[in-house]
Amino acid sequence: MTVPTAILLISCPDRPGLVAKFANFIYANGGNIIHADLHTDFAAGLFLTRLEWQLEGFNLPQELIGPAFKAIAQPLQASWQLHFSDTIPRIAIWVSKQDHCLLDLLWRQQAKEFAAEIPLIMSNHPDLKAVCEQFGADFYTIPITKDNKAEQEAKQLELLSQYQINLVVLAKYMQVLSSEFITKFPQIINIHHSFLPAFAGAKPYQKAYERGVKIIGATAHYVTPELDGGPIIEQDVVRVSHRDTVADLIRKGKDLERVVLARAVRLHLQHQVLVYGNRTVVFA
Amino acid sequence: MTVPTAILLISCPDRPGLVAKFANFIYANGGNIIHADLHTDFAAGLFLTRLEWQLEGFNLPQELIGPAFKAIAQPLQASWQLHFSDTIPRIAIWVSKQDHCLLDLLWRQQAKEFAAEIPLIMSNHPDLKAVCEQFGADFYTIPITKDNKAEQEAKQLELLSQYQINLVVLAKYMQVLSSEFITKFPQIINIHHSFLPAFAGAKPYQKAYERGVKIIGATAHYVTPELDGGPIIEQDVVRVSHRDTVADLIRKGKDLERVVLARAVRLHLQHQVLVYGNRTVVFA
Amino acid sequence: MTVPTAILLISCPDRPGLVAKFANFIYANGGNIIHADLHTDFAAGLFLTRLEWQLEGFNLPQELIGPAFKAIAQPLQASWQLHFSDTIPRIAIWVSKQDHCLLDLLWRQQAKEFAAEIPLIMSNHPDLKAVCEQFGADFYTIPITKDNKAEQEAKQLELLSQYQINLVVLAKYMQVLSSEFITKFPQIINIHHSFLPAFAGAKPYQKAYERGVKIIGATAHYVTPELDGGPIIEQDVVRVSHRDTVADLIRKGKDLERVVLARAVRLHLQHQVLVYGNRTVVFA
Amino acid sequence: MTVPTAILLISCPDRPGLVAKFANFIYANGGNIIHADLHTDFAAGLFLTRLEWQLEGFNLPQELIGPAFKAIAQPLQASWQLHFSDTIPRIAIWVSKQDHCLLDLLWRQQAKEFAAEIPLIMSNHPDLKAVCEQFGADFYTIPITKDNKAEQEAKQLELLSQYQINLVVLAKYMQVLSSEFITKFPQIINIHHSFLPAFAGAKPYQKAYERGVKIIGATAHYVTPELDGGPIIEQDVVRVSHRDTVADLIRKGKDLERVVLARAVRLHLQHQVLVYGNRTVVFA
Repeated sequence: MTVPTAILLISCPDRPGLVAKFANFIYANGGNIIHADLHTDFAAGLFLTRLEWQLEGFNLPQELIGPAFKAIAQPLQASWQLHFSDTIPRIAIWVSKQDHCLLDLLWRQQAKEFAAEIPLIMSNHPDLKAVCEQFGADFYTIPITKDNKAEQEAKQLELLSQYQINLVVLAKYMQVLSSEFITKFPQIINIHHSFLPAFAGAKPYQKAYERGVKIIGATAHYVTPELDGGPIIEQDVVRVSHRDTVADLIRKGKDLERVVLARAVRLHLQHQVLVYGNRTVVFA
Repeated sequence: MTVPTAILLISCPDRPGLVAKFANFIYANGGNIIHADLHTDFAAGLFLTRLEWQLEGFNLPQELIGPAFKAIAQPLQASWQLHFSDTIPRIAIWVSKQDHCLLDLLWRQQAKEFAAEIPLIMSNHPDLKAVCEQFGADFYTIPITKDNKAEQEAKQLELLSQYQINLVVLAKYMQVLSSEFITKFPQIINIHHSFLPAFAGAKPYQKAYERGVKIIGATAHYVTPELDGGPIIEQDVVRVSHRDTVADLIRKGKDLERVVLARAVRLHLQHQVLVYGNRTVVFA
Repeated sequence: MTVPTAILLISCPDRPGLVAKFANFIYANGGNIIHADLHTDFAAGLFLTRLEWQLEGFNLPQELIGPAFKAIAQPLQASWQLHFSDTIPRIAIWVSKQDHCLLDLLWRQQAKEFAAEIPLIMSNHPDLKAVCEQFGADFYTIPITKDNKAEQEAKQLELLSQYQINLVVLAKYMQVLSSEFITKFPQIINIHHSFLPAFAGAKPYQKAYERGVKIIGATAHYVTPELDGGPIIEQDVVRVSHRDTVADLIRKGKDLERVVLARAVRLHLQHQVLVYGNRTVVFA
Repeated sequence: MTVPTAILLISCPDRPGLVAKFANFIYANGGNIIHADLHTDFAAGLFLTRLEWQLEGFNLPQELIGPAFKAIAQPLQASWQLHFSDTIPRIAIWVSKQDHCLLDLLWRQQAKEFAAEIPLIMSNHPDLKAVCEQFGADFYTIPITKDNKAEQEAKQLELLSQYQINLVVLAKYMQVLSSEFITKFPQIINIHHSFLPAFAGAKPYQKAYERGVKIIGATAHYVTPELDGGPIIEQDVVRVSHRDTVADLIRKGKDLERVVLARAVRLHLQHQVLVYGNRTVVFA
């Protein structure tokens, strides 16, 4: 399916005729829908949909699709995003000292599991510089202390802008971002090494060990000002037993973390995630 | 969501405008779509969809919806089924001596997990007669031997007709149905106690034990003349270890069997399963 | 394996020679060990073991095994329990209005998945009386209010004593037991309908829905005065999606609850669970 | 736990006193057992055990432990292996063109998840030479054709001997080894990209797609002359749906393959796997 496609993500108050209206817009312009997903949240009175159609033979040029759709969306009070599969998003990965999620993402990108570029990697520690450069990414060491946070975040924002980054992935970054930062750059996915909302915050494996759970998990979520409280994109779990020490939980958890984060990033990049309230609809 | 709905399951050769066409049909008659699922099998050039809309306020009376839709479907060479959520299907359960799947289905029906009636239970053994009658179902003992199979299947078909049965569920029936039977009554779901296609046929747990697998499974599928070869609706698995004897596999397997069968029956009853070729699309 | 066995559960400070000491005790008296499980918690400096041997040909009569072992255990500062597989434990099940866990336990007991008797069922509501009596269990309705709790718990303790109950299973009892009760009768297993420690307390499915988790769970644990804080025996999970309403979570959760509770009860009845601190060792 | 340990893997005909005998041997020489696992296969009349004890303070020098234990093992007709945790095994990885399992093993080795060296990598294709050399491993391209197989396998055996390899890991090698080779070098672990015994042989994802399964798997097993028929060490699975093309199954399968293979290799390296007949006991 290498034909370029357009993707509309729409949410609006529910009412009859929405599917027909949106499908007619696409068909009237000669588009062939290849994926249509729809969810109605009856409690919220909300209609959410994802429509993907082939651009080949579509009568509207790409730059006119948005304006044309706006005319339909406005009377419906719809919020919407329009994406094109041939626009390659640019990702910045932020890490600390652990390399497993970082390497996994870089490897997947190289293996073309993601249609994305990863030109920029930042860390508060210099440890992973060499490995990042092997993958052709620029690496910046930006140490954060209590005192320099605002200043360093300004530098980070500047780099995001300079590299034209669309998405920040916190691949075990281990630092809390300020609300100001998140407001200015809200497209951030984090991997948390627990089955949220259990064990939010620091040292989740230690806490899981102490609580004596029989299953541990990992959670990928969008970052919001509330620590580990943002909309969840993906979670997964693995069994543990009394034989597992904290070190074993960490080791088993790493396998979870990288696969859960990778799935979430891929879903985001394919525009399969729609956020509303503090929830996600994942059209997969 | 107790408002009655109509459900269309459609498959037809793919071409542009199908979503618009079907959605327009519903909207033009005043219907509000609450679920729309679509799948395009590009390799097969096939478009498959499930549309569900509220009948309240729909302008066409139920008996005219089919004829009206036929006019749309025919030029598209579509095969389609129309269902109404307020038509309660009637299930016959066929068992042998094991009660776990049977009881589970009866419990779920009583707990209203299924919108269905279960008026008829048949077995080649009389053992479960008393428990079935507690649930208000008629129970028939129809022993099958090599010599009387054709004759007994005729009797079974007669009962299915007499009780106006829409779906037969083989809840560990342990007998192979003849091709003739399946042709005459093709709506049959079976639970097989292995992860198909591994261990088709008799004694799957014994075979799984001998092979030394680390995971066992169960598979719910539609019955076709090929033994354990029909379209798969649902599968699930559970871990086993060297400690587990064949008896342990059987015990652990029972928990799988009943939940896998129940999920498949529920999906079927909600018209979420579309068969094409030897595959299913499960819109869930 | 219907030969009767003896089971020793032992925990003591770790030191060399413990396995030899315990194995020699059994072998010197003519016993054949069929299961030996051992766990060393290095952080706690604790040795925990489960030994099971065949009583056939064992030279000590059952009533002398305990006293004989005491002489070995005391100098090691060991805490230990001795069980015999032919002593059938007696269970009381406590329920509220929901029947799925109750029916599941009764059915498993009937199917001989548990070696236990279930002579007594208590509820704060009369709804499940008829179904319990079908299974030959005595049913007592003991409504609990804020004002009569102490008094009613006294009545409950009296019944536990009268029926010689060894284990109370809270099969969706939905009431909090007082610390006094738990102190007097500490052998209690509860099923909590969440993946603890997430969503402890009331309405976990509602909370899970609101948090937008992608996986829900159930947890079986021993009851301690801290609500939903006792040692975890077993947990399991199931995937959910944005399509699942709170009602769907409840329905999916029921399947988890009954299987997680049943596994925990079976592990306990086979003396495969050793509690230390707020953790369990599960020798399975 | 960095204290060096000794590990005995023993299997022998079952009889009373075995645990005592083995534990006494260790204790009499001043050893502290830290792991003892035992399995009795009653059907086979076989006793299987894994004993691990700390060498610190053990009275026998390493080279005398084997001979001393031989005197105990012989009259019991026991087969046994003795390992030392401070003997670092040497692994050769064999690959074809796919890098995911290879990289994963190399990462884990670098991250010290495995106590092993990986000095040698062989492939029938030159593609992965550069990446292997980054990790400091020697890489040999040994193309196999129908005509040169015997000759090339001789060369491979020579390299295994030259590099003093203890274990060959087929990390998506995609070639069938001859019986002769396997007889001469039997310590081989393979990853097969299906849930064996389903879809043995070539193109398992294609076959899984065609069969319409709802779950796919991966299997790590020891290699025997029967293709994909050797003793299974580890398996795992992941859900798929009608949306998943063969390419999606391959992508999802890769995540399974690498984790299943890594778990199996780790279990083997920690001497937690005991093979008997065509089965494994996994003491984990």
